[in-house]
Amino acid sequence: MSNRPKTKTTVNIYGQQFSVIGTESTSHVRMVASIVDDKMRDLNSKNSSLDINKLAVLTAVNVVHDYLKLKEDYEKLERQFTEKD
Amino acid sequence: MSNRPKTKTTVNIYGQQFSVIGTESTSHVRMVASIVDDKMRDLNSKNSSLDINKLAVLTAVNVVHDYLKLKEDYEKLERQFTEKD
Repeated sequence: MSNRPKTKTTVNIYGQQFSVIGTESTSHVRMVASIVDDKMRDLNSKNSSLDINKLAVLTAVNVVHDYLKLKEDYEKLERQFTEKD
Repeated sequence: MSNRPKTKTTVNIYGQQFSVIGTESTSHVRMVASIVDDKMRDLNSKNSSLDINKLAVLTAVNVVHDYLKLKEDYEKLERQFTEKD
């Protein structure tokens, strides 16, 4: 658990305001929000027929996909690290 | 670039149907969709006043946060790996 004080950061993602409360720094929250905003705009530019709902869900789908790929890479590196001994 | 043939997988995420076209296997697409669905339901159980839009955007925010943390861990492990030589 972090002992850092809680911060409340208000961000704008794809025209909607969100208040994010947590122990992360304001700059980290703003960076995360801007990545999501960029990804939604990028998806919209490729498929302008998607409504905001689907756009948000598909953005989450893409990020989970990227997360799983990175997790695979991490586990691979971890195995190589252990084998190096 | 992958030479695998394109697949079209229809998934249901939080009551909405999506057709995902890509070179990933159907089982991978289904797994990603079920993770997003779980995360949206989990967030809804903690804050039932969020509409589906905000729920999806905040799910993407949470996953991007997790991605960045994992990326930090990956880079840390990579540095340790190099220093082991």
